[in-house]
Formats: sequence, structure tokens, C-alpha cells
Amino acid sequence: MSGNTLGTLFTVTNFGESHGPAIGCVIDGCPPGMALTEADIQIELDRRKPGTSRHVTQRQEADQVEILSGVFEGRTTGTPIALLIRNTDQRSKDYGNIAETFRPGHADYTYWQKYGIRDYRGGGRSSARLTAPTVAAGAVAKKWLRERYGIETRGFMSALGEIPIPFVAWEHVRENPFFAPNAEIVPRLEDYMDALRKDGDSIGARIGVIATGVPAGLGEPLYDRLDADIAKAMMGINAVKGVEIGAGFASVAQRGSVHGDEMTPEGFAANNAGGVLGGISSGQDITVSIAIKPTSSIRTPRESIDKAGHAATVETFGRHDPCVGIRATPIAEALLALVVIDHALRHRAQNGDVQTTTPHIAAHIPK
Amino acid sequence: MSGNTLGTLFTVTNFGESHGPAIGCVIDGCPPGMALTEADIQIELDRRKPGTSRHVTQRQEADQVEILSGVFEGRTTGTPIALLIRNTDQRSKDYGNIAETFRPGHADYTYWQKYGIRDYRGGGRSSARLTAPTVAAGAVAKKWLRERYGIETRGFMSALGEIPIPFVAWEHVRENPFFAPNAEIVPRLEDYMDALRKDGDSIGARIGVIATGVPAGLGEPLYDRLDADIAKAMMGINAVKGVEIGAGFASVAQRGSVHGDEMTPEGFAANNAGGVLGGISSGQDITVSIAIKPTSSIRTPRESIDKAGHAATVETFGRHDPCVGIRATPIAEALLALVVIDHALRHRAQNGDVQTTTPHIAAHIPK
Amino acid sequence: MSGNTLGTLFTVTNFGESHGPAIGCVIDGCPPGMALTEADIQIELDRRKPGTSRHVTQRQEADQVEILSGVFEGRTTGTPIALLIRNTDQRSKDYGNIAETFRPGHADYTYWQKYGIRDYRGGGRSSARLTAPTVAAGAVAKKWLRERYGIETRGFMSALGEIPIPFVAWEHVRENPFFAPNAEIVPRLEDYMDALRKDGDSIGARIGVIATGVPAGLGEPLYDRLDADIAKAMMGINAVKGVEIGAGFASVAQRGSVHGDEMTPEGFAANNAGGVLGGISSGQDITVSIAIKPTSSIRTPRESIDKAGHAATVETFGRHDPCVGIRATPIAEALLALVVIDHALRHRAQNGDVQTTTPHIAAHIPK
Amino acid sequence: MSGNTLGTLFTVTNFGESHGPAIGCVIDGCPPGMALTEADIQIELDRRKPGTSRHVTQRQEADQVEILSGVFEGRTTGTPIALLIRNTDQRSKDYGNIAETFRPGHADYTYWQKYGIRDYRGGGRSSARLTAPTVAAGAVAKKWLRERYGIETRGFMSALGEIPIPFVAWEHVRENPFFAPNAEIVPRLEDYMDALRKDGDSIGARIGVIATGVPAGLGEPLYDRLDADIAKAMMGINAVKGVEIGAGFASVAQRGSVHGDEMTPEGFAANNAGGVLGGISSGQDITVSIAIKPTSSIRTPRESIDKAGHAATVETFGRHDPCVGIRATPIAEALLALVVIDHALRHRAQNGDVQTTTPHIAAHIPK
Repeated sequence: MSGNTLGTLFTVTNFGESHGPAIGCVIDGCPPGMALTEADIQIELDRRKPGTSRHVTQRQEADQVEILSGVFEGRTTGTPIALLIRNTDQRSKDYGNIAETFRPGHADYTYWQKYGIRDYRGGGRSSARLTAPTVAAGAVAKKWLRERYGIETRGFMSALGEIPIPFVAWEHVRENPFFAPNAEIVPRLEDYMDALRKDGDSIGARIGVIATGVPAGLGEPLYDRLDADIAKAMMGINAVKGVEIGAGFASVAQRGSVHGDEMTPEGFAANNAGGVLGGISSGQDITVSIAIKPTSSIRTPRESIDKAGHAATVETFGRHDPCVGIRATPIAEALLALVVIDHALRHRAQNGDVQTTTPHIAAHIPK
Repeated sequence: MSGNTLGTLFTVTNFGESHGPAIGCVIDGCPPGMALTEADIQIELDRRKPGTSRHVTQRQEADQVEILSGVFEGRTTGTPIALLIRNTDQRSKDYGNIAETFRPGHADYTYWQKYGIRDYRGGGRSSARLTAPTVAAGAVAKKWLRERYGIETRGFMSALGEIPIPFVAWEHVRENPFFAPNAEIVPRLEDYMDALRKDGDSIGARIGVIATGVPAGLGEPLYDRLDADIAKAMMGINAVKGVEIGAGFASVAQRGSVHGDEMTPEGFAANNAGGVLGGISSGQDITVSIAIKPTSSIRTPRESIDKAGHAATVETFGRHDPCVGIRATPIAEALLALVVIDHALRHRAQNGDVQTTTPHIAAHIPK
Repeated sequence: MSGNTLGTLFTVTNFGESHGPAIGCVIDGCPPGMALTEADIQIELDRRKPGTSRHVTQRQEADQVEILSGVFEGRTTGTPIALLIRNTDQRSKDYGNIAETFRPGHADYTYWQKYGIRDYRGGGRSSARLTAPTVAAGAVAKKWLRERYGIETRGFMSALGEIPIPFVAWEHVRENPFFAPNAEIVPRLEDYMDALRKDGDSIGARIGVIATGVPAGLGEPLYDRLDADIAKAMMGINAVKGVEIGAGFASVAQRGSVHGDEMTPEGFAANNAGGVLGGISSGQDITVSIAIKPTSSIRTPRESIDKAGHAATVETFGRHDPCVGIRATPIAEALLALVVIDHALRHRAQNGDVQTTTPHIAAHIPK
Repeated sequence: MSGNTLGTLFTVTNFGESHGPAIGCVIDGCPPGMALTEADIQIELDRRKPGTSRHVTQRQEADQVEILSGVFEGRTTGTPIALLIRNTDQRSKDYGNIAETFRPGHADYTYWQKYGIRDYRGGGRSSARLTAPTVAAGAVAKKWLRERYGIETRGFMSALGEIPIPFVAWEHVRENPFFAPNAEIVPRLEDYMDALRKDGDSIGARIGVIATGVPAGLGEPLYDRLDADIAKAMMGINAVKGVEIGAGFASVAQRGSVHGDEMTPEGFAANNAGGVLGGISSGQDITVSIAIKPTSSIRTPRESIDKAGHAATVETFGRHDPCVGIRATPIAEALLALVVIDHALRHRAQNGDVQTTTPHIAAHIPK
């Protein structure tokens, strides 16, 4: 494939630019017969959309999705589901000043190097806005996984810059714009973001994502392992610079007698593996953690070059997220769901319908 | 694809089990006309092969490679290159005791759950031995990248368990069995491993891999980004639980004014991006760091279950690496080369031959 | 892949149903920098669109295409090109009578068997209308092939039912609604079609397609041979039941001393091969011939069954082509162009830019 | 993909050259748990192997297959099945004279044009010998289809040159070296071949292939239709120049009231469709017919050119099939089985296990 399609059996082909007429995707391989409406998709898009708090970009986009195909009389038909989102609030003039120069840390430079032409308006194809179609496709995957297997994919912010966010409860996640699983810490996060905006700077974040109810047996070793495809999907999110499964980097200093999760007739005694052994799901929760870098579009002046290779100073005005991590949680959930459904279908192709044949530990305390 | 093929244009299809008659791979898409002999491949296999020091498994395998096709009169023909490695030192009796039980932290359990049948001898398909064909394919990719673009992929151990290994010089890497870029620290590493073996336990490690000379423009956003495919390839290595590009998880606490690498007419001023911006290579060094978990096959008794779901205690004898990370460096190098060549060919397909049009920083201090 | 994507490097992902809100496709892998406007695509859509003569369906569709992405300031950017065509003239009531019964020879039955649900309105996904996005994508491929290599793909009708159509000149093709390369025979074809409509019946046709200017070396043996991919693309057109390359079925009775095209320093002496040897283009014209079956939607009453498996008599009213072959020429041209561009990019990936190194026969007399 | 892999879920990656050390393939995606031995594969290879009668090449090859992986204790494990066939009877000197010149109608020229290097020994990669791994993989597919669904794929010769071969009975097929379903005509075919050999010439043939017991619902419209993938697989066989499904080219002159197969509660009343409607299997027999051109390697002197582009006369000695069609039947059967199993797995992925829900006509009189 040419790079804009995710998955092998449940595929998502993504198109669009930040300031073009529309963005969207085509989902191919969705099983037929599932009830599906635009509302099922909109609910996830609304969790990601801009302008929902003062801590994110003020661009006003309804991100209204239209189902163009693949659904008949309220049910999926098994044919491609095309999803369309019109862009409505472009202010291209904001970006005129970056047509000739490259933002440090931004894809401006590499797109220009690769293609010799780039749509610089709002970051064009490299804009975080292009995660919307992924979230829309993820909503379809989530619904099927929930109804077919009782699988849920949920995420939360585990750190904002240098502030770690101790996990308290899932209920808190939906009650604040940070997706923080900890209501008490929210005021501190808000003060932090307010100060950051005053500085005209940006910051990174860490996001956790978990899939529960995943049956054992999903994943195609070797190379299309479940963990490998999760790593690809997560590292493919704009601004992600690191991915961990289970104990992640902490496993470097662990001994085998500590890391290896013991098993009992009642299930696993721990989950350092993060629910994946040998590239195949074990039936435990699949636990993922990702590192998100700070936005490169900041008001602080930076040294750079222009297309001619001459020195230039760049300041970015326009409307940007001072922390793209704040809106990353629904994106990470969507991608985890897309990887899991793809492997569920791949498993079914080779092995017939998935069954869970042994007990597993459902509970998991996110780090 | 069905899961055992890596890449889209330079593809590697891997086959074999640890104790079957043979292991190997088929490389499809290698450009024609490149001089290639078995010696070019053997040199990389020898860096990975077992039994080379007391710190790794004592299984004696020559890992002798045979080229079955795709090379005529010493040159690649552009047709599939099949590589065969016969298994010679199987001791299946060593593994009889794990036919019925599952090693904690091992793929025993998940393979059985997925397929309902598993070749338990030496871990069968899930054995680290299956990285040999990947290393062999990587040798072909490395040679082409070196001759065509002057690209080099090199790795080193950056931490053994809790011992960090400060980078001193590349020359040191080849002079010790740990691939440590630091000769002084080697005695300490050896004492550490000796103590570990006495304990019948295992430990994790951290490996760094760098690609130098990669032209700007490689990578297919979105989703087949260069960093995404690197993450997939690395997380696909047995025992890897985490992957970082550039600043990795450190970027969580960085501000945009620090993280974004400034540019000058002479090149980049830093490399927090790890050579990838927006999923496309920037022309800087591509820097990757991976976390490797401790081996699950240890002599220490552990709680587990048998196929019937009854409680069982598992101790693994046989021959195992107390730290799979020690032999992981050539594997990580091979995979980085395989991802880069695949994207070099993909770029050439859409954009014609790759050119570097601007200066880049060559120097990079590995962390 | 999930079945609705054509190609490997220049991919076309097709979506939509005959009476849904819209149909369209996403082209991924188009090289950047090519001038492209909606008019470039519309000109090909207009050649295929319905209602252009009394011999085709009277459904009125403007088939107006909108470019949603992948083009910036009039040039392709190398990112996905999404093409949208809104459906405007649906008359679903016409089709109510086939919601419960299956038309003999139609996909009604197999879609229902496969998915357990089908959009029966106008044939839903199986409608010939879904060839429009293919034609739109083909227009992009044709433009690139013409500008980059001087390649042209052109088609014509070589038989309408039992009436063979001797080739006279390409100029005639555009001057009649049958794409007949023979102006003199047109009145006879019109009388034939008028009689057929009176009978409430339909008829088959034979179409020839030729690609000129294709350099030698395109095709990936074995299995993704150029001729194999052409056969797949052509047999994938609705109603096609046979495909020939070069001498086709006539080669069964040919001797090797006759069939094998001799070569001279000036080029080939004949073209029984149809421009493909061993699955790779030879530099000669690529000549293809396809058989198109008669439409299954006819007014003549036919025996069939309903969803319950009970006997039923089916007559189709609504608006249909009495000979789908009449509008098939632009579709076949588009598909030949899509296969050739995909192999041109694949060849470039492995072998660098295509060059023609020997003389070839340009002239070819279509059969 | 890079061209040497067939299928999407049940994949076959083919490698080797006619006079290299070995040929073979890797099957990926075979369901686990099926009993499989080398004998199951050898029986099909023996039907295709050379030297079995005076009418085919006299090259002596045992075509002994070795299973290198994917089978444990006599059952498939779900991991890649690597199959190896050593070449034993190379006589490269026979081919020295074609190292510098190109056989008219042969791939010599196009391989050289494509790659700039070619293994000319025995046709190298373009040799019909490379169909052996396809037949071996097909044997695995056939066994699974037979055991899982009762599907059979069987072929026969329907014409040798200008001699049509009326179908009498399947039993006759295995009793003569031509795979002719008609014992009476065999002496005539033998005389014909003897005369041909005296002339130092070659001839074409027509082969029919049928799949019985295929459930309704297999095929992925649009573009990966069942008929499209069959056409690709068949046109991908060396020397095939035409493919028909069902009525094929005869449908050009058929009226819709004749072509469309009527349905009754007992099943279909005819099979002009050849078992495929709208790209999806209907539950009827899948009927395919292919045209095979005469071999290009003949003793008769022909005009050609050498690598320098100078005129040259070519006569081919060595050992060749005067009619490659004679050994094509097992190859066509294998490919039909490979396409059907791939679509059976694809269908299962999206729709769950295949079921036949309506009666179908089993009987079919091959044309």
C-alpha cells in the first residue's frame, strides 16, 4: 500500500488536509449486520474536537461526520464505509508566514524535502486534524468489539509535562478536559497550562491506553505481532516519540523471576507483559503507554531556515494546542481498537471464531 | 499478509522452528545487480550466533547460510533471494518438561491458546533463534544501503539491568561480547552476568540503534510513517517491551522551545526528533532505543499451570540466554536497515531517486 | 486487503452504492507535482456517464466529480487524492420489486448469500455505476502516463452481439455512442439495439483495449505479472466473462513457429504476445480483448426464487443498459492505465527509472 | 508486495531458478491442526513432473519435496510451511547458445530488459519449472478445502492445437499423459505430438478447470472478486494467453434471456455464469477455461537479435515440452484451489464461518 491505509482486514484509508475542503476515511472490511448511525461516530469525534476548553486550539470545527456508504437501513452491509468531515473554519492567512520557512521540530521541512511541494495551510496533511478520521473509524471498531466480544479500549493522561497524574478512577476521566483519571489534580493542571500559554510555549504528555476483555490468541507472530502493530499504530500518532507495552522500559532492570507473570488456575498473578506474550494476546488487559512531545508551533521565536536555505527566525501565531497530548486520549483509544479488531478478524480467518478457554485477570491498576 | 512477512517492497518472509529441520527466509524485491555472496551474510549471522561467550546460550549452531536463489554469477538478479540455515544442535529432550506446562512470561501459553497446537521444542516458532533469518536479510539490506546511499545502521548496549553503559566509542562495540560501546565497563558486566547465572535468574537490557546517512524524505505519512514502521519492527523483536525515537519518553517533560530542533544553514542544531519529523526522515541520524525484558526461561522455580489448567511449578533447564539483550544488537541493526531500505524503495517508487538537497548534522552523541 | 482496493503502489479504494448519497474513491500513491484539475477527470467521466444516447440507461447523472484532497494550487501533493461524486437521480421505487426476489444472472443472490444483507436499490454496490470512480482514478493515471512516458490507453468496441466490427480508424471511435472504430457500421448497430429494446432483452459485446508507448520491463513475475494483473483488472469489470492478451484463444491452434514473434534490429516482426513476454512488457503495444455478457436486468419474465426460496417470476423495469458493453470502453481503458501505472511505479522502486533501450514496433492493427 | 507472493491470507511466496540449487515456496496462513505429510504434496508434484512420457521434456527431476517448517507431529501448526525441492538434473551447457541471444516469444528478452541481468540457464526464473512450488502449495490448499468443505478442483485438456477433445468422463483424465477426459481420442493426440516433434515445432492447448462444492458467498467485490482473482492466477501461468469463466467469449453473442441462469427452489437451471455472479460464488460449479500458447523453445530456426541488438538466428536444442499445455492441468487445478482457499479465509474473517444455505446444482457438463 502507499502509506495512508491502516490495517490488513479492517482497513482505514485516510485522506485530507487541514485546510482543504474535507477530511475523511474509507473503512473496508467491517463485518456486515452491525447497527451503525452517524451518532455512534459523532460521540467519539466530539471527545477529540478542538475548541472544547481554553487549554486547546480555539479553532471552531463541528467535525460533523457524514456516512456516505456501507450502511443500509441502519446496518453495515459489509461494503466500504466512507466517512466525510467537511472543514469549515479555515483561516489560511494565519499560516502565510510559514509558507516560506520551516518550523523547528515540525514536518514542514520533511514534507517539502519529500514531495517538493506541500500544502502549508494549517500544517496541511501533517496536521493533528487528520487524526479525526482515525477517531471516526475507531468508533466503528469500538462498537463492533464491544458488541461482539465485550472488549473496551479506554485511555487517560498519566502525566502532563513534569506532573505525574496518579490513577484514581475511570469515572474522573470524562469529567475534565485533560482526560485525567484524577479530579483532585485538575486545578493544578489548569494553572500549569495557563502559565504555559502566557509563556507562549508548549509541553509534552504521557497517555495510557488499556484494552479489556481481549481474548487470548490475537496476534500473528512473527512479524505482525499484536504488540508490534500496537507500537506502529501508536508511534504513527502525530507527536508520539515513545511506546511501551506492560512494564515497558522498567523491564530493563527487572529480573526474570520478577518480570515473568506467574499463572494460577484462577488466572495471571501480575501483568508485566501488558497482555501480550510472544506477540499474541494472553487474555489479560492490554496495557500501553505513549510519550507525546510538545507542539512545535509556538509563539516563542526560534532559529530556522527558509526554502532557499537562508537563516530565518520563526514565530507561529495562528491557533495551536499548547499540549497536543490533551486531545490524544481518544486518538490512542481509537488506534488500539483498530489494531485489536484487525487482529480479531485475522485470527478468525485462520483459526475460526475466537474463544476464551481459560480464566484471566480482569482487574488492572494503570500506572 | 498472514503475518510472517516484513516490509512492503523489500519483503522478508520468515519460516522455521527452533528444533525443526531448518530456518530461513525469502527476500523479495532486492534490486538487481548487487554483488552478493554467502560471506556477506555470514559475517552478520556470526555476530548474533549462540555459544560465542559464557554469557549466552551454549547451544552450538554454526548458523551456516546457503543462498538458494536470486543470485547469478555473484550478483543479485532482482528475483527472490531464498536463504536457508539448517538446524544442527537440537536437544529436544531438554524441553520435554515444558510440553505440558507453560513458562511464566513465555509464549508457550499464547501459542497454545491461538493455535491449539504448538511445537514446544526449544520454544518452536517463538524462539529467539528465529531472529537469525531476520539478521541474514538485514545483511543484504545493509549492503545495498551502504553501497547505494552510504547509509550505516549500528547498535550498542546502553544498559544491562540496572547498570547504565555510558557511550565512549563505536570501536569498543566490536571488542566485547556485550556490544558495549565502553571497554572499561566490560569487567563489571561480566561479574554481573556471572552472579546472575549462579542465581539461575535473568535480566533485561537497553539497546540503542542508529542509522547514519539516511537522506531526507523517507517515510509515508499517514500511517506508514518511518518512525511507525521502526516501532513495529523493534517491538516485533522477541522480548522487546518499549521503543523510543530521539528524545523518547524524555520529551514528555520537555517544553517546545527546548524539544524542537532549531535549524541553521549548516544543518540542525540538535536531534531531539531522532531524525524523523512528521513520520519522514529529516536527514539527521535516526536514533532508536529499545527495552528488552529478561528471559522467561530460568532455573528459578515459578508458579504456573498445565494444559489442563491445574497448578504446576516450572523450572527451565535446557540452554538459555540469561540476557537475550546481549545478542539483540545485530538484530536491532538488521531491522532498522530493513525498514530503511523498504522506505527508500517506496520513496523511489513515488518520487524517483532519492536526493539529499540540504546540509545535515552528521555527528550524534548516542545516549 | 479487504477487497475494494486496486493496485499496490498506485492504489484506488472504491466506495459507494448506486442509490446511496455518493460514490467515489481515494487514490493513494500518485506522484507529486502533476498539474491536475477536476476538468481533467470530468472529461473521462463524461465518456462513461449514462443518458448520453437512447441505447443506454436513461438515468440522468451529471457524475460531477469533486477533488477533496491531494491537490494544492493545481498540483498533486503526493498525498491521497479523494474523489467524490454525489448521486442525484435515484428512483428507488423502481427497484422495490427486486427487494425480495433475485434477478437471474445478477449479483442480487450472491450478495445476499455473502452478507445476509444487501442494498437492493439499483443493484447497490454491484451496480455498474460503481465503475465511475474507477474511470475517475483512471483519468489521473492516464494523465501521468501520458506526461511521464507518452503512454496512451485506448479502447473500442470490436463486436456487438453477433455483429463483428472491423477496425477502420481510431478517429471513428469518438464519433459514435458505441465507441465503434468504424463509422459505416454504426447505423446497423443502432437498428440492432432498437430491435433489442423492443424485445425487452439485452446482448453482450466484445471490447478491445490497447496501451501504446509502454516501455519494456514492466511486470513482476511470478505471480504479479503484468498480464496477470491486467486479467484481474478486466475480469473485475462488471459483466466481463473472458480476457485475452495478444493472440488469446487463437494461440491454442498456433504452432510455435507462427506464434513466437520474431525480432529484428528494427523491432518485433509481429505481436502475437500482445506486448507481454514472461509477464513483463516487451515494449510493443499491449493488446487486450474482453468479453462482456448481456445485462441481467431485462423486461423479459424469468424464473427465479425469492428470499424464502420459493419460486418467483422476475421482470425488471427501472432503467437499464440493454448492452453494458456500450459504456465499457472508457472503463477498460481506465483499468489498463491503472495497471500500467502501478507496475511503472513498482518497476521504478526496484530498478530505478524506466528506460526504453531498444527499438519497438509502434504500429499495431487491432483485431 | 514485490510480486512473488500469491494470495492475501493463504499466501504462497515462490522462489528459485530452473538451474539453481533449489526451488520452493513458503505457505503462510494455513490453518492449524490439519494432518499433512510430504506424501500428500508429492502426489500432486508427480502429476506435473517432467519425463513421464515421450510427449514432454525428458529432463529427469524427482521433484522430491521436503517440508522444512510449519508441521509438528504430522499436523500443521498455523505457522509458515516452507517447502523445498532440490534441482538435480541441470545441463546448463545445453543453454549456452541462448546466453547472448533472445528466443522469439520467450521471456529472455524482457527479463534482460527489466533487470539488466538474467539467469539464462534453462530459462532461469521464467522456466515452467517454477510452477512446481505452486503445485506443491496447491496440494496443501486442496487437502484443506476437501476436508473442510468437500471442495474439489479438477482439470482436463479440452483441446490440443486444432483438435477439440469432447468431454467423456473424469475417470479418463488420470489414464493418459494428456489429462484428456476422453480415452478414445488419445491415440490421435499421440500421433499428433509425434509428428510435431519430427517437425521440431510446438503447439498450444486449451485446459478446463472446475471447482465443485464451493459454497455461495466467496469473493470480495469490488476489486478482489473471485473471478478476478481466478483470472489473475490463471493468466499468471507461463504461456497462458486467455481466460474464460462460464460461457466466456460465447456470452458476447448471447441474449440476456439466454445467458442469465434461471433459478428454481431446487437450484440453478444452467451455469452460464460459471459459478460466479457479481464477483461472488453462487454455489454452482466454478468453471474456468484457459488458452495456452505453444512453447517458444523450438528447434526450427527463427529470426532474432542478440544483446548488442544485431540480427541473429536462434534454434533451441536442450530439452523442452513441445506442448506445455500437456503438463498444465495440475498447475491450473492448484491455482484454482489457492484462489478458493484464500477467499474462503477472507470470507471467514469478515463473515464468520461459511455456510451453504440454499440448494445448488452439483452436476456440470464441462465444455
